[in-house]
Amino acid sequence: MNPVIEQLKLHRSIRKYKPDALSDEHLQSILESAQKASTSSNMQAYSIVGVTDPEAKKRLAHLAADQQFIEECPLFLIWCADLLRLQHACAPIEEVDIPSTSEIFIIATVDTALAAQNASIAAESLGLGVVYVGGIRNNPKEVSEVIGLPKLVYPVFGMCVGYPDQEPTQRPRLPLEVVYHKETYSTNTYTQGIEDYNRSLSEFMLTRAGGTRDSNWSKEMVRRLNSRHRTHMREFLAEQGFELN
Amino acid sequence: MNPVIEQLKLHRSIRKYKPDALSDEHLQSILESAQKASTSSNMQAYSIVGVTDPEAKKRLAHLAADQQFIEECPLFLIWCADLLRLQHACAPIEEVDIPSTSEIFIIATVDTALAAQNASIAAESLGLGVVYVGGIRNNPKEVSEVIGLPKLVYPVFGMCVGYPDQEPTQRPRLPLEVVYHKETYSTNTYTQGIEDYNRSLSEFMLTRAGGTRDSNWSKEMVRRLNSRHRTHMREFLAEQGFELN
Repeated sequence: MNPVIEQLKLHRSIRKYKPDALSDEHLQSILESAQKASTSSNMQAYSIVGVTDPEAKKRLAHLAADQQFIEECPLFLIWCADLLRLQHACAPIEEVDIPSTSEIFIIATVDTALAAQNASIAAESLGLGVVYVGGIRNNPKEVSEVIGLPKLVYPVFGMCVGYPDQEPTQRPRLPLEVVYHKETYSTNTYTQGIEDYNRSLSEFMLTRAGGTRDSNWSKEMVRRLNSRHRTHMREFLAEQGFELN
Repeated sequence: MNPVIEQLKLHRSIRKYKPDALSDEHLQSILESAQKASTSSNMQAYSIVGVTDPEAKKRLAHLAADQQFIEECPLFLIWCADLLRLQHACAPIEEVDIPSTSEIFIIATVDTALAAQNASIAAESLGLGVVYVGGIRNNPKEVSEVIGLPKLVYPVFGMCVGYPDQEPTQRPRLPLEVVYHKETYSTNTYTQGIEDYNRSLSEFMLTRAGGTRDSNWSKEMVRRLNSRHRTHMREFLAEQGFELN
């Protein structure tokens, strides 16, 4: 195992931060690392909004399911899929109608995620901790207002960055053979693999929650999928100019 | 700069591979690294199909814009957003209707991208090279047939993995101040930043293409956005059970 893979394997989400701010050098390294990620046809279809203002973080924390750590972390990055800058790129030559296809939505969303993952790894290598925050999609319109997002830009997720003030244990993942398929997709491993995973996750949850929380993957996923949350996203995306045609 | 950030900053896409296969140990490390990436509510909504069969790679290369390196690389990974496994996860408890929302589409697509980016970094740290292949979305239905994808699974992108047989130079990225916004989104930097970037990319292209290819970012983006490609994606996604409601 080399130091890079070691780093990747150490990841766990941090939900409690020291108040210390990042140095400018660290922030610069993190952002430059983000930019080095692959991007579809060099479109670089993402923007990052970095929020440090306490009032703004407080408001964003409230909008994202009242998650306290958003207020507490020194830097809250909001990762946005961005087609507006492409329109600006074309402007010196001609006015281009940005396509409102599912395809361009995938491109911009994936570009954003790849860059963010590089940033998270860079941050962790500098002793910082991160957590991805899908909760900003609870109130995407209000979040967009707080950070002034124009049309053709949408907030995909947030990311807290700061020095960890906790040492959480790693949650186990699905057995590899359930996720990786050789040559063709197969569900043959699913019944046994999910049963095994339910067992290990149940053990983990009982340990982590002090022996009081009895759950497993199947139970968590039923609860999660039945909640039908964020059904407003389609309409919000359309308002932002992402029609998903 | 630490070894992790150094690694991230070295990335360039590889489009020419030696025939040597990966060792099982390396593949295992790469896949385990992928699994360590963050995942929304632990849904792990992705699957990876690893293709090594020469005939299958040849067919996939043809379907993905006849890109020769897909045939030549020893391992072609197809990264799929996967909601089917979640249905299997719920099965022991109850039959759950997988929501067909834009929200769950974002979750699964982002989960896939984060895992893939971890894999690409792990691979590069082992001396391997990679390239992301959006071209599999040129013929997503046929690609899905080759690797046997069922409903509720869609191929987001491919990734060639293998030992590099070229030393490409890094393409410059946009100036950081065009991508990173402090506190709120702003287009103030765009005109100057894009002008600067056009200049540096034009220089780069003239150098890399032996002084014959005169282009820049604005020109490339106009060409790219006017091509309106992959307009079939919406229909394909719906057929796979991703309705984007």
